[in-house]
Amino acid sequence: MSIVVLGTVALDSVRTPFGKRNELLGGSAAHFSMAARLFTQVHLVAIVGNDFPLEHVSFLKRKGLDISSLIVDQGKTFRWQGEYRGDLNTALTLNTELGVLSVFKPRISQEQGMIKNIFLANVDPDIQGYLLRKMRSPQLVGLDSMNYWIDNKRKELIKLLKHIDIYVANDQEARSLSGENNIIKAAKALKGYGARMVLIKKGENGVLFYSDKFIFSLPAYPVEKVIDPTGAGDTFAGGFMGYLARAGKISPLILKKALAYGTVAASFNIEDFGLNRTSRLKPQDLRRRLEKFKGGFLF
Amino acid sequence: MSIVVLGTVALDSVRTPFGKRNELLGGSAAHFSMAARLFTQVHLVAIVGNDFPLEHVSFLKRKGLDISSLIVDQGKTFRWQGEYRGDLNTALTLNTELGVLSVFKPRISQEQGMIKNIFLANVDPDIQGYLLRKMRSPQLVGLDSMNYWIDNKRKELIKLLKHIDIYVANDQEARSLSGENNIIKAAKALKGYGARMVLIKKGENGVLFYSDKFIFSLPAYPVEKVIDPTGAGDTFAGGFMGYLARAGKISPLILKKALAYGTVAASFNIEDFGLNRTSRLKPQDLRRRLEKFKGGFLF
Repeated sequence: MSIVVLGTVALDSVRTPFGKRNELLGGSAAHFSMAARLFTQVHLVAIVGNDFPLEHVSFLKRKGLDISSLIVDQGKTFRWQGEYRGDLNTALTLNTELGVLSVFKPRISQEQGMIKNIFLANVDPDIQGYLLRKMRSPQLVGLDSMNYWIDNKRKELIKLLKHIDIYVANDQEARSLSGENNIIKAAKALKGYGARMVLIKKGENGVLFYSDKFIFSLPAYPVEKVIDPTGAGDTFAGGFMGYLARAGKISPLILKKALAYGTVAASFNIEDFGLNRTSRLKPQDLRRRLEKFKGGFLF
Repeated sequence: MSIVVLGTVALDSVRTPFGKRNELLGGSAAHFSMAARLFTQVHLVAIVGNDFPLEHVSFLKRKGLDISSLIVDQGKTFRWQGEYRGDLNTALTLNTELGVLSVFKPRISQEQGMIKNIFLANVDPDIQGYLLRKMRSPQLVGLDSMNYWIDNKRKELIKLLKHIDIYVANDQEARSLSGENNIIKAAKALKGYGARMVLIKKGENGVLFYSDKFIFSLPAYPVEKVIDPTGAGDTFAGGFMGYLARAGKISPLILKKALAYGTVAASFNIEDFGLNRTSRLKPQDLRRRLEKFKGGFLF
């Protein structure tokens, strides 16, 4: 079954200890799609400005995404500028230009409105809610957010969580939104807001999955040369949700496998700048790394 | 096969968000022993002062440890005073009184000198080296240290690592001793110092095992109510080395199982103050939690 992803398509300028890149194609929905496309048909719901390079449009199309709901509007494309230092675990945002994102009202076709799998990647919770209300028969809805919205649109975000199946957060966000320091307590509190399942991403420390039925913890796939972690969380979500969408149902075993696919997808993402590595990714690359990961015999 | 553990036996005063305890029995060797005793005969090599409560001596004996090489010397027992705040991941040392530890020269019997499994828990690297030279036929030698020695006896510690099979460090220590931020690179660099295997403890984020043959990563067993993490790393090492000592040989499967046993042993330790929980631990408690952990279906 196919999946709708709402989020940003951005121009990212990033500096890491391994170099500097200007205006790379990025954004939460773009990173998500690079992994999810390996499992299912991805319908991209996003906005860019009329300064958005045409080559990026054809690139997204070439990658098999349905971009019929990618709005091109008058104005500037959303831009993010950031830097990673030291252990590359935390991004330092240097600058954000919202551009057309500030007037974004998602549009979808009637057919897209019937799709059952939805991922609301990081954008304003009001926009996430707006799209979700347009969806006619949501079956599996995932949502990601970020500290900015937790601080500035806390109420809206919490209200939205009642309609979400899987809330995806990193550990800082989970602690911040729940007010709990212990990561298990934080997950429990977030579940209390209404999301059936909570998935906490801990970067190089792996993920924690929390639901009433089971808790599952998975380490990260060890990557020695982390070049650029931008979008790792979105790539994780793309592999995870993509696999679940293809499976078409949920069981503990399917969830575990989805988490493992998310983990290996993210491990590819961080090995190069932007979408460089994940855009070249093939299903067999994922499968091969998954096999290594499963055995625990990683090299 | 039995195991010799060298380390501290201490009186710990600790404050966590869940309360305050004064002069609890603690120390690296004591915490290690509580887990290792469930697998094999533990020979404790340590020193206490003549202010050490007699009840603690009988307690250690009652727990089945060979305390014939626990020296009782004129002077004060080593005391540590610390506090945990927030997520309880980092201890804040408020005070350290070395006492008799400053004159500690380990003594062992001739029989103990023949034991093949040795764990050098955290004490001065000079003392660790002194004991290791007394051992006649070391086969599996583990070593733990701490930032204080990394900063103050770096050369001695690095020299010692050449004679070590398994270097056990937490992530901060691994980064600090290797000068590498990426945890895999840090492990590789530490292996370069001579230890055949490197085991990096990441607290609530689990462990990373690194050797030439394989890398293995394991999440922590999720514990919701962390009361007091003091000694969790030593308890981990106790379960890990205890299992390896009992196994009497090393293979990837045995190592993985040893890591899992260390993980669940540590998860019990943090559920209560000091040795309260681990001193009541039975092999079947470990086995039961290991079963839950293995399946990933944790509750």
